[in-house]
Amino acid sequence: MLDYKPNIVLSNQEFKVVGTRPIRHDGYDKVTGRARYAADISLPGMLHAKVLRSPHAHARIKSIDCSKALELPGVMAVMTADDLPDLSARAADQEEGSIANLGFRTRNVMAREKALYRGHAIAAVAATSAHLAEEALALIDVEYEVLEPVLTSLDSMKDDAPILHEMLTTRATSGGPGGLGDSAPEKGTNVAAHFEFRVGDIEQGFQEADLVVERDFHTKRVHQGYIEPHSATAMWGTDGYVTIWTSTQQLFGAREDASKLLGLPTSKVKVIPMEIGGGFGGKGTNYLPAVVATLSRKTGRPVKAAMSRIEVFLGSGPTSSSDITVKIGVNKEGRITAAEAHLIYEAGAFPGSSVGGGARCMFSPYDIPNGYIEAFDVLTNTQKVAAYRAPGAPMGAFAVEQILDELAEQLDMDPMDLRLLNAAKEGTRQVTGPVFGKIGCVETFEAAKQHPHYSAPLTGPNQGRGVAAGFWGNGSGPASALATVNADGTVNLVAGAPDIGGTRVVMAMHLAETLGISAEDVRPSIGDTESIGFSTGAGGSSVAQKVGTVCHLAALDIKQQMVERAAKIWDVPVEEVEYEDGVIQSTTDSELHLTFKDLASRLNATGGPISGRANLNPGGAGACFAINIADVEVDPETGKVDVLRFTCIQDVGKAIHPSYVEGQVQGGAVQGIGWALNEEYYYNGEGNMVNSSFLDYRMPISLDLPMIDTVLVEVANPGHPYGVRGVGEVSLVPPMAAVANAIHNAVGVRMNSLPMSPGRVMEALWANGSANGGS
Amino acid sequence: MLDYKPNIVLSNQEFKVVGTRPIRHDGYDKVTGRARYAADISLPGMLHAKVLRSPHAHARIKSIDCSKALELPGVMAVMTADDLPDLSARAADQEEGSIANLGFRTRNVMAREKALYRGHAIAAVAATSAHLAEEALALIDVEYEVLEPVLTSLDSMKDDAPILHEMLTTRATSGGPGGLGDSAPEKGTNVAAHFEFRVGDIEQGFQEADLVVERDFHTKRVHQGYIEPHSATAMWGTDGYVTIWTSTQQLFGAREDASKLLGLPTSKVKVIPMEIGGGFGGKGTNYLPAVVATLSRKTGRPVKAAMSRIEVFLGSGPTSSSDITVKIGVNKEGRITAAEAHLIYEAGAFPGSSVGGGARCMFSPYDIPNGYIEAFDVLTNTQKVAAYRAPGAPMGAFAVEQILDELAEQLDMDPMDLRLLNAAKEGTRQVTGPVFGKIGCVETFEAAKQHPHYSAPLTGPNQGRGVAAGFWGNGSGPASALATVNADGTVNLVAGAPDIGGTRVVMAMHLAETLGISAEDVRPSIGDTESIGFSTGAGGSSVAQKVGTVCHLAALDIKQQMVERAAKIWDVPVEEVEYEDGVIQSTTDSELHLTFKDLASRLNATGGPISGRANLNPGGAGACFAINIADVEVDPETGKVDVLRFTCIQDVGKAIHPSYVEGQVQGGAVQGIGWALNEEYYYNGEGNMVNSSFLDYRMPISLDLPMIDTVLVEVANPGHPYGVRGVGEVSLVPPMAAVANAIHNAVGVRMNSLPMSPGRVMEALWANGSANGGS
Repeated sequence: MLDYKPNIVLSNQEFKVVGTRPIRHDGYDKVTGRARYAADISLPGMLHAKVLRSPHAHARIKSIDCSKALELPGVMAVMTADDLPDLSARAADQEEGSIANLGFRTRNVMAREKALYRGHAIAAVAATSAHLAEEALALIDVEYEVLEPVLTSLDSMKDDAPILHEMLTTRATSGGPGGLGDSAPEKGTNVAAHFEFRVGDIEQGFQEADLVVERDFHTKRVHQGYIEPHSATAMWGTDGYVTIWTSTQQLFGAREDASKLLGLPTSKVKVIPMEIGGGFGGKGTNYLPAVVATLSRKTGRPVKAAMSRIEVFLGSGPTSSSDITVKIGVNKEGRITAAEAHLIYEAGAFPGSSVGGGARCMFSPYDIPNGYIEAFDVLTNTQKVAAYRAPGAPMGAFAVEQILDELAEQLDMDPMDLRLLNAAKEGTRQVTGPVFGKIGCVETFEAAKQHPHYSAPLTGPNQGRGVAAGFWGNGSGPASALATVNADGTVNLVAGAPDIGGTRVVMAMHLAETLGISAEDVRPSIGDTESIGFSTGAGGSSVAQKVGTVCHLAALDIKQQMVERAAKIWDVPVEEVEYEDGVIQSTTDSELHLTFKDLASRLNATGGPISGRANLNPGGAGACFAINIADVEVDPETGKVDVLRFTCIQDVGKAIHPSYVEGQVQGGAVQGIGWALNEEYYYNGEGNMVNSSFLDYRMPISLDLPMIDTVLVEVANPGHPYGVRGVGEVSLVPPMAAVANAIHNAVGVRMNSLPMSPGRVMEALWANGSANGGS
Repeated sequence: MLDYKPNIVLSNQEFKVVGTRPIRHDGYDKVTGRARYAADISLPGMLHAKVLRSPHAHARIKSIDCSKALELPGVMAVMTADDLPDLSARAADQEEGSIANLGFRTRNVMAREKALYRGHAIAAVAATSAHLAEEALALIDVEYEVLEPVLTSLDSMKDDAPILHEMLTTRATSGGPGGLGDSAPEKGTNVAAHFEFRVGDIEQGFQEADLVVERDFHTKRVHQGYIEPHSATAMWGTDGYVTIWTSTQQLFGAREDASKLLGLPTSKVKVIPMEIGGGFGGKGTNYLPAVVATLSRKTGRPVKAAMSRIEVFLGSGPTSSSDITVKIGVNKEGRITAAEAHLIYEAGAFPGSSVGGGARCMFSPYDIPNGYIEAFDVLTNTQKVAAYRAPGAPMGAFAVEQILDELAEQLDMDPMDLRLLNAAKEGTRQVTGPVFGKIGCVETFEAAKQHPHYSAPLTGPNQGRGVAAGFWGNGSGPASALATVNADGTVNLVAGAPDIGGTRVVMAMHLAETLGISAEDVRPSIGDTESIGFSTGAGGSSVAQKVGTVCHLAALDIKQQMVERAAKIWDVPVEEVEYEDGVIQSTTDSELHLTFKDLASRLNATGGPISGRANLNPGGAGACFAINIADVEVDPETGKVDVLRFTCIQDVGKAIHPSYVEGQVQGGAVQGIGWALNEEYYYNGEGNMVNSSFLDYRMPISLDLPMIDTVLVEVANPGHPYGVRGVGEVSLVPPMAAVANAIHNAVGVRMNSLPMSPGRVMEALWANGSANGGS
């Protein structure tokens, strides 16, 4: 372990296990290569699948002839969309509260009428080797009618834009959830959804403003950049039960998804989660399970598929690009009087951008008396987007936090003071409606302002400092846990949310704290969909909160049974037995006491084993806030931005395992710096992503980065027994804006587009007349 | 499904699911090759292990030189006993109540000081392929000092017999559990244990007898004959946690065994049970896990081993051979006045024959006022025996039931009347001590006597009919279950005893009956040692009783939560809600009712998922009785015996799934017929088994057999919610005696040795002067 001094403020409860830093239980296997990932599966008779992908960004599929591929020795089956149930893709079938539907889901897994992006899956081959399968792809004869693609949201919203989905019309989409209604004549549209949020009186609010700033912002699509490509293996039994081994953030969600796409009852699909080599939201969407399951059905053999890196870029979902206009008005004191935003988020080839997340989060750190947000979910001939940490929120923050910086500058106010003046508090109503409960926004802002970094002097020319805040609402959801006591006094603990960021150790620590034993004496594992009760998965920064809660409750179930067992052994009333710090003792006879380990060794002989279970939809997720302080130095010759110092301050409620919370925060900052400075999907005019490798798609490496300092603020979440708030997503919200504000502070230019790559910075400097000289 | 009319008598409860015959949940996968057995495991970087086996039945190991083997490219490690903890093998360390100890266990897994049987594991090699590993075996240079072997119990008990274990002395063993005490001078012995049971006054009993018959009987070792050879794969993590995939009847037992042999805490070993291709007791002993785990520790890679068929014969445990003398006296009315037995059972190379099982069962169908049993557990230079259905009991029955037949003949009494007159009843004390509770012995005997088979005429010369009874006490033990409700109204159910005979469907039926849903709506599975609470395994005919009980209790846990949830939804007191036949309803408002499926679909939105758990050591195993009626025809020219008709009558308490109970009974009869007529380990003078293949070791196939008819008697076991008694073992107890009695009835010779092969029958006919003529 590093000799690391924890940087935690405001902790307000006494714990023995919570807040310590035990070695994660899955750590050894992961660093020694023994952990088993999805692609590590090998089954008797297993076939290998490869996916044929569209070379066109927009094309009608006139025919697919697989006969030549099937003639290749070793090829056992070919599948196309015709092998999947023809689920409806009518807009009217959109699920309540969702802007995706199954018709779109199945068409993203395998193109049906049209190929809608370069890389869209067209067909798949199962063969006795991956090489044969790949060879067979070239023998599939697809007749395309190539159509004009539309590659940006703004082009896509034009009247004469090529229409992706004929069934999407102005009437259908405007009547959707949160839609505006529309009495204009029905016609095709690429706007999949359009909705608004209002609070107060926006016109009145701007009238009250003494200063108004309005600007446009643009961000590009970026990929989550997980190391492990998607992989899935399926075995379809003759009884219609399908087993799927895959890397997923949602094992029960993957079960639900596969069952719907395959036309099976939920319980006929079993998902066995393998280790996840990174997800960040992107492993919440499943591309391969329905494909390999169908090939397994057709061949009667297990079938495995694993994407290559280029397939991950072309065939999985990055985050939305965005085009955002934000206008904020403040009075002379700096109090926000009105805030307005127009959000256009790119969904890619099927409805469902992250615009909702952008809308719900962008103004939430602040108390906005009068607000208006208009949001568009727009289709383009690009990969359907997927979730990426705090989906949609970073783009909104990139806009709002720069405007606030500009307002503070114009008011000659400290930007932290401006934020503190307007900070959201318990009882603040968000523009999107919800009213905050107990939150730590002010405490987080204050911790930032008081942090030495905030007042440290800059040390050279072309250096600048920026701050930016971010918000994420966090989620919760149903979860289940089972804890079983071993005779050696250890406890096995199973839950059903995949471990993407230290879930196992957090599970163990919850149980250990409640039982008064050590985290090392708990052996946590992730079940499969048949071995553990329903759980929502690793998403919405909900795992520590919901899974932690059920682990705590399972421990209470064990405690109660241990007390009953001791009472039975001692032949005393249960009421006279108590459980305290891992010791079961009589309240009336000090001779009667047993440690947890003592009693554990005697269970079988005194009535049987003890297991504790818990299943709950706990609610009570705690909203959270983060703020970043970034120092940069801009090279005015090249436009290259170096990050010199970076501090993340975040309200985590209670850090169960501070190292992994810090790791989450640091990881978010690193991904944010990559998004800020380098990362983007770069398309040519035909919709080809031309940087689809990790050589060309530049993510930051350790040499690009300073130490990312973290400050964990702990304003306990009353909705969790130990006060946990989700921590995994908000850390990605502020970095881009913080870096942008720092660049402005350094060289005087406002960067309204991401990434702030050397070329773009140079363009801004030239436009500002400040190149080669600094501001 | 066959159009099969169930043949069940005495059923006394009304059920909806219990007693029906749903298709087993694991059936499709098993008949289509999708089920995954231990040898189906493949892991990244996996090595293959082969075991070097002793060519000598008795030899001191002077040295083992592995250097040449290690030089072979592809060989990654070699292990010997030196790589395992040196556990003590002193007789004084024998575990309480057990005649085995860890010192002997580890020495059977890998020979240490001596090779004690032909086939004893001496060393093991891990290499990149199984072929290389095998090649490397020949390069291991073992220097043996060959010793004289002793191959039969009777030779082994002679004063001048070679001694297998120097630490076993007359003093050490006679002071062991149940030992007799001995004040004679201490010397080496091959008698590992010697104990007695007495009831009443045996001398007095024989004085009261009007007729006494005493005879000697001899049986050979036979193998369980499971189709799947032993296999295990292990991965030893750098954190000291070991994962083992294997085929075992005792997953938690295998965990305990491996942890002890490897010197690890129990909870550091995880056992993942694979499907079992037959066990019959023989898969309760684990030969390979400690070997592959050690090779994995040495290589840092997963290591797999799978036995060949010859290794199964030479390296695993068959059942004991036996030498038995039984003497029974009856009065004129046929009432047994005294019964005495002297049992010598062969343990093989390490202590622990099945003589205890023989002693506990042989007289138990009868009320014996005066009884005496003396038992010897004797070592020989042969494979250490293992359990085989009702271990030890078939040999005892082979003796007792022939004597009873002879007594009935001499009394001119119907042999069933003799048995009915002496049948054990509730309250009868067994010779070994225990007093029977509610049992179905009389009902079983009466069902046999009334069966049409018993009174049907024989149809030709050299035909005969025999009857014989059998007893097995059955077991119970701790068990755990977890049941989780799916949104589609199905339930996933997990337990921890491996499925060797239909466990999954029996689990499902228990839960379904209790919840009022269908068995098809339950998805049963077997957990691993980290995913489910402790369970004893598949042994002692205990699974349906103990696992069924916890599945029933897990269903009650779900029921209670469903009632509470409905009360919450309806906002009524819990007391006003009842659960009846899968419907949750208000007792006061007939409008308020929900089916199980309705409520299942609403769980997440009304508080969270529902899981039910149960963990219990239920006790309450029900003892059981069986009787067989066998018709045979003996070919006086060749001595070949054909079984013409065979009927098994057995008290099963309550047949949860009659087809699988019938299958158990039929399987027992078939194995019994094989043991009766053909099977034996045939050794040459050096202790080499010379028939170690399924070609030479002749097990019956369908062409050798008539339809085995079954009659299930149901005298409910009060120790189980639905009345279950264990059914898997007693069915193997009567067949050999029934066939022997039938042979006597056919051709007038008493066969006192197994197998009753053509040669032995001819010898008996010649000795009787009745060859070529019939009696």
